Amino acid sequence: MLKTKFFRPDWTENAPAPGTFRSIFKYGDLHSFKHPSDNWYEMMKREFHLSDDDFLLKQEEGHASVILNRPPALTSLQIEHLKNLVGVQNVAIDDYSRVKFACGKTTEEMLELRQGIVREVADVVIHPRDKHDVLKIVAYCNDQKIPVTVYSAGSSVNFGCRPAKGGVSLVVSTYMNKLLEVNELNQTARVQPGMYGPAYEDALNHAPELFNTRRAYTCGHFPQSFEYSTVGGWVITLGSGQASTYYGDACDIVFSQEYVTPAGTFKTLDFPATATGPKINDIMKGSEGTFGILVEVTMKIFRYMPENRQRFSFMYPTWEAAVNASREIMQSEFGKPAIYRISDPEETDRGLKLYGMPGFVDKYLALRGFKPMQRCLSLGNVEGDRDYTKLVKRKLTRIAKQHGAISLGWYASKKWEKTRYTEPYMREDLGDYGILIDTLETGVTWDNLHRLHEGVRAYIKSRPDTMCMTHASHFYPQGTNLYFIFIASMTDPAEYRDFQKGIIDNIQKFGGSLSHHHGVGRMIGPWMETHLGKEQMAVLRALKQHFDPNNIMNPGGKLGLDDNPIQGL
Amino acid sequence: MLKTKFFRPDWTENAPAPGTFRSIFKYGDLHSFKHPSDNWYEMMKREFHLSDDDFLLKQEEGHASVILNRPPALTSLQIEHLKNLVGVQNVAIDDYSRVKFACGKTTEEMLELRQGIVREVADVVIHPRDKHDVLKIVAYCNDQKIPVTVYSAGSSVNFGCRPAKGGVSLVVSTYMNKLLEVNELNQTARVQPGMYGPAYEDALNHAPELFNTRRAYTCGHFPQSFEYSTVGGWVITLGSGQASTYYGDACDIVFSQEYVTPAGTFKTLDFPATATGPKINDIMKGSEGTFGILVEVTMKIFRYMPENRQRFSFMYPTWEAAVNASREIMQSEFGKPAIYRISDPEETDRGLKLYGMPGFVDKYLALRGFKPMQRCLSLGNVEGDRDYTKLVKRKLTRIAKQHGAISLGWYASKKWEKTRYTEPYMREDLGDYGILIDTLETGVTWDNLHRLHEGVRAYIKSRPDTMCMTHASHFYPQGTNLYFIFIASMTDPAEYRDFQKGIIDNIQKFGGSLSHHHGVGRMIGPWMETHLGKEQMAVLRALKQHFDPNNIMNPGGKLGLDDNPIQGL
Repeated sequence: MLKTKFFRPDWTENAPAPGTFRSIFKYGDLHSFKHPSDNWYEMMKREFHLSDDDFLLKQEEGHASVILNRPPALTSLQIEHLKNLVGVQNVAIDDYSRVKFACGKTTEEMLELRQGIVREVADVVIHPRDKHDVLKIVAYCNDQKIPVTVYSAGSSVNFGCRPAKGGVSLVVSTYMNKLLEVNELNQTARVQPGMYGPAYEDALNHAPELFNTRRAYTCGHFPQSFEYSTVGGWVITLGSGQASTYYGDACDIVFSQEYVTPAGTFKTLDFPATATGPKINDIMKGSEGTFGILVEVTMKIFRYMPENRQRFSFMYPTWEAAVNASREIMQSEFGKPAIYRISDPEETDRGLKLYGMPGFVDKYLALRGFKPMQRCLSLGNVEGDRDYTKLVKRKLTRIAKQHGAISLGWYASKKWEKTRYTEPYMREDLGDYGILIDTLETGVTWDNLHRLHEGVRAYIKSRPDTMCMTHASHFYPQGTNLYFIFIASMTDPAEYRDFQKGIIDNIQKFGGSLSHHHGVGRMIGPWMETHLGKEQMAVLRALKQHFDPNNIMNPGGKLGLDDNPIQGL
Repeated sequence: MLKTKFFRPDWTENAPAPGTFRSIFKYGDLHSFKHPSDNWYEMMKREFHLSDDDFLLKQEEGHASVILNRPPALTSLQIEHLKNLVGVQNVAIDDYSRVKFACGKTTEEMLELRQGIVREVADVVIHPRDKHDVLKIVAYCNDQKIPVTVYSAGSSVNFGCRPAKGGVSLVVSTYMNKLLEVNELNQTARVQPGMYGPAYEDALNHAPELFNTRRAYTCGHFPQSFEYSTVGGWVITLGSGQASTYYGDACDIVFSQEYVTPAGTFKTLDFPATATGPKINDIMKGSEGTFGILVEVTMKIFRYMPENRQRFSFMYPTWEAAVNASREIMQSEFGKPAIYRISDPEETDRGLKLYGMPGFVDKYLALRGFKPMQRCLSLGNVEGDRDYTKLVKRKLTRIAKQHGAISLGWYASKKWEKTRYTEPYMREDLGDYGILIDTLETGVTWDNLHRLHEGVRAYIKSRPDTMCMTHASHFYPQGTNLYFIFIASMTDPAEYRDFQKGIIDNIQKFGGSLSHHHGVGRMIGPWMETHLGKEQMAVLRALKQHFDPNNIMNPGGKLGLDDNPIQGL
């Protein structure tokens, strides 16, 4: 047995081969990797009672080529018709396309794809060239009762793009990914739904060159999946960016939307405010493709002023102190930070260890009374006008100190920014050795925060040898979110499913929302009726019935509108 | 003929007698009056080519007692049943009640009530004691297909409380007017829908005594109708307060809502954010009683810090300069003022004359290049944390000056605050002498503001001898509202109706929203389908069909859901 003091697992450094299952489930850029640090590796061995031996052999890696062996269920006449509508080159029926565009990024999908297990897929994959193509496809599919499931960036963590009923996978990110217009007077941007975050932000940052504007702009929306999510996805799943405390959640920065639905095509009103009855613009947000297809969206944009950014980080003696200070900051009305995060004691301590805190800092902190498994890290930044960012930083620093925090300066915040989008890359490395990392998240009012945190955490920790790191990262005067990250050595898919179900049950039991910003998809669907109550579910179903009487739009369990358990595991 | 240099019309100083038509249409406190100033009187004579002679005799004053002579169309069995449900003392079928609780504050209603003309009324007026009463009434009325129209404060300016189809007038302000709970951790207040603005604000200001809170709070919502509007009315009509630029519109400060509908009773989710599909909380806002009855609402509240208020006022050389500066202020990201208003040249000049600007100030302004019918007044205040209010005032002052404004200090703002709720009181005085004052308002993006302002104004001014004063008073990064006040000597109701229709047509033609914050009611209903498009109207109708399949909830033209022209004129 090969074992040295410096043993390091053979983390994969090779891009998955084209056509393989791994090329589908791998997160992000196929050629980019982020390996667990040596500290993290040591911690995992310790926590999970593993030795270097357990990291000698990889689990199933999914290197096999995708083979489906399932002829499309559509007739050749139907497929021909679709080809005529959008061009033969934009319709695919090959196995790889059908699997790739059926998959998101759930842990279950990764586990199964490693073993070459494929669940529901569409019969045909279509890449519409523009909204007129979408209109033609929806009209035809509605007529023929062919299901249509939308795929944009595929970063769904709740089976949002798995075509439960076959039919068409409609890939809106292939062509419909342009920034169409920047309206500088109104500070709005009209954009196609399939535009990826970085391309959108880059175009706004370069608006003076590209759109002849006087200023550069920012989109204000930076979810962790920023690099592998699209503007349309943000809107239809009710996402939140890491700077949402200042810029607002996705729902707040949508100005108007254009949809193609079986019940017609429409663009919602373009007004900063209107009192003309319930707002269709609001009704469509979060519909997750079940009412129709978002084909264009006008977003609010913001002045791009990175030079004014003020970073901060603090260590609080306790979680209670961090929460109390955060509430005071959010309710004090001196303005809001953009990024604002607090980590609970377990996340704080693991983070400090993993990202390498010098030993003397640890000793200093302990001496000052900031004890391991009690102390809590907070970090963030302030954006906006220069005088505003200085004021907000000064004011929130004062409140932090009043609650016993010490300032750690800008360093931790800057360091966090460097890895803000890359954490998910570690998933494949861990999975190669049978270790799972996954997350569930919830929204909560201040008065229920501790009960919910403790309740869900207790459930997760009741499983032996399971890490549970929690942070709050989206703040409002009325409350915040809780984001639970759990890591475990777990190889039995059925066990994982039960564990996940238990966490969602406990989020529900302890009064959290079923999701703060991941959306519902098919995974959370079964909890929806209990969560909303049957009267409110009936409202969603009435809307569904109106927009899509033939149930062709993302059918099969999405939003809990109908009953369709997820296959597998 | 009596005529002296000091002639002043005999403005009414007597409260209308109980039981009279005048006691119904008079705005606000029956014992409060606000008469046109002598300057205003002189101006009206000049503008409308009137003389003192024209102010010798009053028009119809509506002093007659209300007599209806229309037996209720409900059966005595039905009325008995309703009395059994809510208590005999809470059901009224007398003429006065039936007329009073059918009326809002439109100009048309005033004109007709002066002549003793009564249009649609309910058969019976019910004052529910609590939400359980509401539930019983809705269940029974749904079973019996008896229409139910909600009346809260009766300040509707679009026939929102006129019972188009008879049935029940449900008066929610008689008993259901309490602040039930202040949740200080969450900064929310749970309140009954019929609570009037001043009572609500007063209770929040005194929360430490009343609810044992550490701090005092404010509701942040102060429409001009504050004294005669209720919290529920704000929410279901999508109102805006005068400080909305900072606190948000009514829709922004609703946390959750509880409704009784024919399709069931429910309370929307209590989370600061949630990604669980389209939000029922949003869907219900602005439903104007057509889906069901709001029986409880949880509002966001804010710290009450009047000591930090910073007032400002400016004179801009032109309307363009005022608009450009305002846009810059709203997009600069240093925070927002609370009250923020700009008046167009006509409003500015009439305002200066009416409220008495010393002659030397006028000369000084003219000398400095601030010329009559070009210059524009801006005023407002900043609320929030002390350092924040100072910062925002400093920054917006700098921008104002960059756009050529001179500061007029805090005086104009303070003076405006004194009359902020009392302007509507003048309506009766003017009406006594055949002069109409009315308003229509709209929301608009920056890039369409001038076109809309000029287009609508040109239409109003195309009528000879008609004043048109316009301001913008609710600001967003993407645009603002325009509030048109028109005053004319007009006694022919048919002419008034045509004129009003023409203004709405022109708001539509020049691309404004049909309403920024007055709501739709029955008056704007006929324009809705064109405004939203048939696909979006169909969404509202599908929701209506779901909640209220028997069409008993505020039926008859509300929101344009069905077709029911307003009787009369």
